[in-house]
Amino acid sequence: MALYGAIEAGGTKFVCAVAAGPDDIRDTATFPTTTPAETLEAVCGYFAGYQQKTGDKIDSIGVACFGPVDMNKASDKYGYITCTPKPGWQDTDVVGSLNSKFGVPVGFDTDVNAAAYGEYLWGAGKGLGVVLYLTVGTGIGGGLCINGKPLHGLMHPEMGHVIMQQDKTKDPFECACPYHDSCLEGLASGKAVDLRWGVHASELADDHPAWEIEADYLAQGVMDYILTVSPEKIIIGGGLMHKDLLYKMVREKVRQKLNGYVNVPAITEDIENYIVSPGLGTKSGICGAIGLAIDVIS
Amino acid sequence: MALYGAIEAGGTKFVCAVAAGPDDIRDTATFPTTTPAETLEAVCGYFAGYQQKTGDKIDSIGVACFGPVDMNKASDKYGYITCTPKPGWQDTDVVGSLNSKFGVPVGFDTDVNAAAYGEYLWGAGKGLGVVLYLTVGTGIGGGLCINGKPLHGLMHPEMGHVIMQQDKTKDPFECACPYHDSCLEGLASGKAVDLRWGVHASELADDHPAWEIEADYLAQGVMDYILTVSPEKIIIGGGLMHKDLLYKMVREKVRQKLNGYVNVPAITEDIENYIVSPGLGTKSGICGAIGLAIDVIS
Repeated sequence: MALYGAIEAGGTKFVCAVAAGPDDIRDTATFPTTTPAETLEAVCGYFAGYQQKTGDKIDSIGVACFGPVDMNKASDKYGYITCTPKPGWQDTDVVGSLNSKFGVPVGFDTDVNAAAYGEYLWGAGKGLGVVLYLTVGTGIGGGLCINGKPLHGLMHPEMGHVIMQQDKTKDPFECACPYHDSCLEGLASGKAVDLRWGVHASELADDHPAWEIEADYLAQGVMDYILTVSPEKIIIGGGLMHKDLLYKMVREKVRQKLNGYVNVPAITEDIENYIVSPGLGTKSGICGAIGLAIDVIS
Repeated sequence: MALYGAIEAGGTKFVCAVAAGPDDIRDTATFPTTTPAETLEAVCGYFAGYQQKTGDKIDSIGVACFGPVDMNKASDKYGYITCTPKPGWQDTDVVGSLNSKFGVPVGFDTDVNAAAYGEYLWGAGKGLGVVLYLTVGTGIGGGLCINGKPLHGLMHPEMGHVIMQQDKTKDPFECACPYHDSCLEGLASGKAVDLRWGVHASELADDHPAWEIEADYLAQGVMDYILTVSPEKIIIGGGLMHKDLLYKMVREKVRQKLNGYVNVPAITEDIENYIVSPGLGTKSGICGAIGLAIDVIS
């Protein structure tokens, strides 16, 4: 039975696991994201230590990586983190470094594409043709798994930045995105919520007006995704979604905004099972990384 | 060599062709869209007449159909036009009718998915992983071909209805969409342009302010599509795009709006070859229908 190293590479921390499958995670460890050299060294040291301790060999590694990344296999920068604002991480060769340090095949994708893939393989989107995973945390990002494969294309989805209709009489907040004057992430990320209200999102009561505004922007994004790519399941995770009432509010607003236009029972009758929380809980990303590790030697 | 019947089924007319391939269209005919029975009868009569006249047998039929349609092969309404506003056409069994009247296999998809597929097979998106086709005519609709297959999912793309940021101080026009208060089709379709300015789009001079507004909305839609599904080629056709300057304006505005966020050469350096007119001219749809007819017996 093969053994896999899985990495959920985030801007704050790298979560690592050794697993024989999604239900057989043998060990985990977390390292702070410092410099690329130090962080990747720590990860490889951890995997090497696990092998030494157990005598079991890790056959491949999967990485669910913060982005933007280069997913073009024909590019010399395939497997790199490219133009991230994260200091020191621009142009980091993640796949090449892991491969040369550890000597096993490395599967690689964005964190959110990997999460969509994990949910497709083993979670709320199991076996479905079009699975969308959106994370609403400090930032907002989304991934797609289409016909069983994480979606690439020109680059990869960056759907956290779709344009919002902002009614400044109701929400005069100035978009927090450094690139766009009215995008989903800039108006609805955890960072935007913190800035708009001057307190951390977790401190806002259920009846605070923050949630109506939040749900409205999220519903705009979800509506645009439905219209563009027709997902069979929309899975929303991330820190802000711990505010459970948001799911209900987003579902209602999506239905209102579509206004009967996409007239299918999944939306008109059963939206509770259409816009859902992750089937894998907080493990969508790491399970997706396991899936990428499996694929790269299959 | 097989022979195919191809139908581009629109709300105004049905364009039909008999072809052995996209470069070998043997005959064409056009019928007005009247009642479903009459129109489908006319189409079948045309194909039967062609067979009688030439002695050649048509082996399969492909339909690029106006929508919304049911593309779910597990549904009893697979191959139907569903809840269209077109009088008399709600719940029309297109595939079943053609199949029973003509007795050959029938391939079926939306007009815009078929156009995306045609462009993927033989046009501007040849062989690319993610091909997006947008038509800007009386209405606005878009299709996707991903990894060589027209995209379905919960339904099919309906990307003409993505939400727009509308600055009512610059454009006080009331959205013409009966479903949405600020969507692309409602603000930028040919119908919307006619209503906003009181004349037909073709009569508006190149320096008329209409085009700035038009290009802005189209660029918003295109930006959202890029961020959501990362197309490798964006092909825009339809009547309004005969105003050639629109391509240039849309490209510039897409680049401005993304503002460096999707930092890839296709957009930053070579957008002229990224957002393009159809490689198949006005034949994207009918060629896509030929592709669907080929597939259904392959």
